Amino acid sequence: MALRFRPVDSAFYQLFAEQAQHLVVGAALLAEMLAEGSDKDDVAARMRAAEHDADETTHALIRRVNSTFVTPFDREDIYALASGLDDVMDEMDEVVDLILLYEVKMLPAMLSQQVEVLQRCAELTADAMPRLQAMQSLEEYWIEINRLENAGDKNHRRTLAHLFSGEYKTIEVLKLKDIVESLEAAVDAFEKVANIVETIAVKES
Amino acid sequence: MALRFRPVDSAFYQLFAEQAQHLVVGAALLAEMLAEGSDKDDVAARMRAAEHDADETTHALIRRVNSTFVTPFDREDIYALASGLDDVMDEMDEVVDLILLYEVKMLPAMLSQQVEVLQRCAELTADAMPRLQAMQSLEEYWIEINRLENAGDKNHRRTLAHLFSGEYKTIEVLKLKDIVESLEAAVDAFEKVANIVETIAVKES
Amino acid sequence: MALRFRPVDSAFYQLFAEQAQHLVVGAALLAEMLAEGSDKDDVAARMRAAEHDADETTHALIRRVNSTFVTPFDREDIYALASGLDDVMDEMDEVVDLILLYEVKMLPAMLSQQVEVLQRCAELTADAMPRLQAMQSLEEYWIEINRLENAGDKNHRRTLAHLFSGEYKTIEVLKLKDIVESLEAAVDAFEKVANIVETIAVKES
Repeated sequence: MALRFRPVDSAFYQLFAEQAQHLVVGAALLAEMLAEGSDKDDVAARMRAAEHDADETTHALIRRVNSTFVTPFDREDIYALASGLDDVMDEMDEVVDLILLYEVKMLPAMLSQQVEVLQRCAELTADAMPRLQAMQSLEEYWIEINRLENAGDKNHRRTLAHLFSGEYKTIEVLKLKDIVESLEAAVDAFEKVANIVETIAVKES
Repeated sequence: MALRFRPVDSAFYQLFAEQAQHLVVGAALLAEMLAEGSDKDDVAARMRAAEHDADETTHALIRRVNSTFVTPFDREDIYALASGLDDVMDEMDEVVDLILLYEVKMLPAMLSQQVEVLQRCAELTADAMPRLQAMQSLEEYWIEINRLENAGDKNHRRTLAHLFSGEYKTIEVLKLKDIVESLEAAVDAFEKVANIVETIAVKES
Repeated sequence: MALRFRPVDSAFYQLFAEQAQHLVVGAALLAEMLAEGSDKDDVAARMRAAEHDADETTHALIRRVNSTFVTPFDREDIYALASGLDDVMDEMDEVVDLILLYEVKMLPAMLSQQVEVLQRCAELTADAMPRLQAMQSLEEYWIEINRLENAGDKNHRRTLAHLFSGEYKTIEVLKLKDIVESLEAAVDAFEKVANIVETIAVKES
């Protein structure tokens, strides 16, 4: 490994870890939203609060990049990682939002499998962020996220086939398809974060 | 503020102002398209012309960046701003295009509120572009655009809920949803322009 | 033309040519998928293999950029071109995938015109890639791709109008619209590749 002439400003790593913690909260709220008998309005309100907290952390990161002369890794990579993490939150928030907005009463049970993928991705991401500082043991993280994204893609395709199986009214298909696609977009957003981490790790190694 | 060693090439600012003026024209045509009794074919033809003019200005900007040795601000920021402004036009053109293509007869009255947001965004953007040269008084512009984007988001969600209220046939929901999403994308595109301006202003300050 | 101080590493050009060859294969498979009486499962399996091969070439390109000190043209342009070519493959794969997944029995005949546009784009792109090395005779390529993209856009709009003509059940419209939009996205992806080539050619000239 090459010598690193970058300063150790641990605030950046703490903020990335904080962003990822918001994603753990968001994924748990998604699971709650899908649970039978949950108070959907209450879950949605807490999701909005979580999304707001995530925004605050993102802005704190951006402000720190703009006011720091030498950053721990390339400025544009910090932006990319911060906005990548923020995108995950936005996609998860969108899922909750659409369920409420479209007044969907019956959600296909198989959606839970996709939410489990999201919860696992969130945990792995939260685990990986503190390891950015030493740039160590990150490979297992992005390999596992890529594996989960493949599993998520299979769930997604199975769910789409189910939606078009003739069991649902067309208007319900239209609603559920949007929700299912937002779930898939959230999984993809986790993969994008993992790709950014890989790019950073390769550059810095 | 740091000393600026950049040359003053006012042609860039004039071209940005010109791009924003095309957006004012486009937003007005959108309002006309929605007005009762309007000649939709005629409005669509004028929208195509406006979109073509906007393309010309974008190309003039790109050519100027490519042939200028020292640009008034970072080359990639000029590209980003030029293509950001161009994206707004494309989204507004898409709305008009879909209304004609889908032969939508009855547009929900609430779409007008979103078009008003777009008209206000276009005016604010056109006002702000000439202020790029001195990099002054831009903060109020991007704050107001962000406020409008929030209002636009509320309009969008209210309209989606209305589309799925049971009042429309499913095939109409399918058509109107595309139109409504293009309107929302146009508002988002204005916000993206404001974010690019903010990034430029922060760098240059 | 300015003197070029870049080394001649022909491996890059060979890999780009290889990527474009995968697209020729992919476009031919799309045509087969649409042909009457084709074995859709078999075509889809071969498409998956082609997409996998394309991925391998893309990764080989990325690895080569990461391990090469001086690249034949800007590192970020190589990334952009490699991922642009990869995106075309993904969009064509998506079309085949959706046809199978949605179990669409009757595809509108006019889709073939769009697939012809894609086949022509793939051939032109495969022809152009080897000319990257000398950076010569590329202008006719991107002009022709832009012309094809315009033709593709007209096809796309005509097909959408047809889908909403009342001939199809709404659930079929929903399925076919996704397929038609993926075809359009593949054409757009070819145009994006041509734009990247234009940017590179202008910089290097």
